Amino acid sequence: MKYHHNFNPTISDEDVFEEILKEKEYIGYYNLISQGTTAFKEYAKTVKQKNIVVIGIGGSTLGTYAIYKFLKHSKTLTKQLYFLETTDPIDIKSKVEAIDLNDTLFIVISKSGTTVETVSIFKYIHSLVKINKDNTVIITEHDSKLNNYAKANGMKTFGIPKDVGGRFSVFSAVGLLPLAIVGIDIDALLDGTKKVHDSFFAKEEHYNRILKKARFFTEYKNSFNINVVFSYSSRLEGFNKWYIQLWGESLGKVDINSTRQGLTPIGIIGPIDQHSFLQLIVEGKRDKTVTVIKVDDFDSDLIIPNIKLEGLEELDYLDNIEFSSLINKQADATITSINNLSDIPCDVITIDGVYESAIAALMYEFELLTSVCAKFMYINAYDQPGVESGKIILKEKLQMENN
Amino acid sequence: MKYHHNFNPTISDEDVFEEILKEKEYIGYYNLISQGTTAFKEYAKTVKQKNIVVIGIGGSTLGTYAIYKFLKHSKTLTKQLYFLETTDPIDIKSKVEAIDLNDTLFIVISKSGTTVETVSIFKYIHSLVKINKDNTVIITEHDSKLNNYAKANGMKTFGIPKDVGGRFSVFSAVGLLPLAIVGIDIDALLDGTKKVHDSFFAKEEHYNRILKKARFFTEYKNSFNINVVFSYSSRLEGFNKWYIQLWGESLGKVDINSTRQGLTPIGIIGPIDQHSFLQLIVEGKRDKTVTVIKVDDFDSDLIIPNIKLEGLEELDYLDNIEFSSLINKQADATITSINNLSDIPCDVITIDGVYESAIAALMYEFELLTSVCAKFMYINAYDQPGVESGKIILKEKLQMENN
Repeated sequence: MKYHHNFNPTISDEDVFEEILKEKEYIGYYNLISQGTTAFKEYAKTVKQKNIVVIGIGGSTLGTYAIYKFLKHSKTLTKQLYFLETTDPIDIKSKVEAIDLNDTLFIVISKSGTTVETVSIFKYIHSLVKINKDNTVIITEHDSKLNNYAKANGMKTFGIPKDVGGRFSVFSAVGLLPLAIVGIDIDALLDGTKKVHDSFFAKEEHYNRILKKARFFTEYKNSFNINVVFSYSSRLEGFNKWYIQLWGESLGKVDINSTRQGLTPIGIIGPIDQHSFLQLIVEGKRDKTVTVIKVDDFDSDLIIPNIKLEGLEELDYLDNIEFSSLINKQADATITSINNLSDIPCDVITIDGVYESAIAALMYEFELLTSVCAKFMYINAYDQPGVESGKIILKEKLQMENN
Repeated sequence: MKYHHNFNPTISDEDVFEEILKEKEYIGYYNLISQGTTAFKEYAKTVKQKNIVVIGIGGSTLGTYAIYKFLKHSKTLTKQLYFLETTDPIDIKSKVEAIDLNDTLFIVISKSGTTVETVSIFKYIHSLVKINKDNTVIITEHDSKLNNYAKANGMKTFGIPKDVGGRFSVFSAVGLLPLAIVGIDIDALLDGTKKVHDSFFAKEEHYNRILKKARFFTEYKNSFNINVVFSYSSRLEGFNKWYIQLWGESLGKVDINSTRQGLTPIGIIGPIDQHSFLQLIVEGKRDKTVTVIKVDDFDSDLIIPNIKLEGLEELDYLDNIEFSSLINKQADATITSINNLSDIPCDVITIDGVYESAIAALMYEFELLTSVCAKFMYINAYDQPGVESGKIILKEKLQMENN
């Protein structure tokens, strides 16, 4: 008996890597790792205000928030960072009332320069406090209308390179400027991205795991159309939100054969969502992959004290356990019970600690994973044509109201 | 030519309704609408502390947080409500440091009475402040270990009925007590649930829409395995989280034929997630239904002022538009662009305003929808067997550490 086959993958790892190398010539985010940071740090030194308010939405805020949320309680930061990012009137009002606007630097961020939410809020801020070059800095593309506004008012501007998409812009001025101002070490952030970059492009550890994962996600996309990121730290709540935009908006596309693609991202936080979502993962339909993210070292000695509670002696086995150990054991218990089932694809990323290079490495890895998945799926990760029609309809509705 | 068919639905609306009527005899949440509230209101009057800290997780906090988050900026509430609900050490520490624990009432909530997270945090609180009957109240089942603890320490307790599941318990003492204490009108909450209850059980509006929607979701569950709730107000962020638990943990089950069921809930917030998730809905795989939730009246006159920004004149059409109008037009633009595609199932719920009966009616409607879906899917909505194995593994890991 003889046997032959032609069951080769439709696209080899090597082909995908070649495509990524080609793309690296004109997609800018790959190369942000080696940019100079002096301009950001010099500007940061000049900032006198205590509050930093970022006015922006989507890619202009999610990445910055992810890093700030991850680090803010573990470092001695000198300033408070806030985000005005929705048109909900109650939300805007309650946030603005809680901030001393006279001791605030406003960072207005819009890649296109004409984002409706951002300009609406910025106009509203004008009615509350005098806006001028001393309390406002602009981050936008060099030829946008918002840049014209900045020039007309003599305001300091920082550019977003044309070839860096909004949801891939966290390591450009978009993220680095506000983070530098509040006291986060932006060089350490870039160091974190560089390690992943070098490991990937030298075909080392990150090359292997990213290619393997992207291939699995793509080849099984019709069985497992949902990708759950299960983060075992409240510090990663912002990361989850950033991941959802990155994944959803990059991979929800029509491919070159006019077939709809799209892996659906879900971000949940253990242990809270053990009490919310785990049941669905364990007993529900097998349509989900699970990526568990753990933090190895919380740099915390918070402990469950050895205190006897009459009637609750059954739980005395908790005494003297550190909370950091408890949360990591909760993660391990979840991983074990998922792996015991053997039909739920699951991987585990353990980040070393709560510091800059750790979160930056995690984020850069997810950016690379997104780009590689897009290559396997024959789609463009960097556009978002699906949201344009809604923008046009909105503009028509608003112009109608004002006529 | 003659034609016959036997294409009847596997289960009729009438059969499902009969099942719900039977279930109403022994599933307690249906009947919380007509409970007395005097005990909660009387206790609330006696509370002197300024801060109210709920220690609980999952069903013990998510519903309360949903209502509090919805209402807190639109009412003059007399007290601040906080939630300690995770074992993340950095999260616990930063929250506790921000609260004056000597001016705090602790509400410890655990249905089973032995929830690991809740007891761990409660023990930790013991090491920071003297805990006694003057600053602590307990909400649990009448025969739990936590209830024994309360009795041993002479603490006031409120019961959770045995037949009310955790994720269906928001309108029991679990939600009503803390909400009454901070100044929310709990009778108005129950009024909201009662309207929906009566409309459903009298086979009026809510009967028709809930049955129709549950049938659609169930019959198309293999095409559309993801249900997106797209809430156009940041006030509904807590509602989204509550919905995710309710839907995921109730419907992620093995049915009577041993087949895995499970509709996956996603909660997103417009307009922020227009910049994050909308692209995936519009161009991605057709595996999602979308329920848009709008707020008709934000009771806000916040306006985009008529201020000219040199260079940005293109956006002057925004001038003089109220933010509440802008956000609702953004919702309408999203709805129109989804409906234009005609292959994405979409429904729209508009809640009247930012007040008690509106949010309570919305939540009760989703509880009924969950129960009805479970009937169509031949599963038990009220248990959660899938999370038990993880709890056992965790206990073993922790006991190993302490031996």
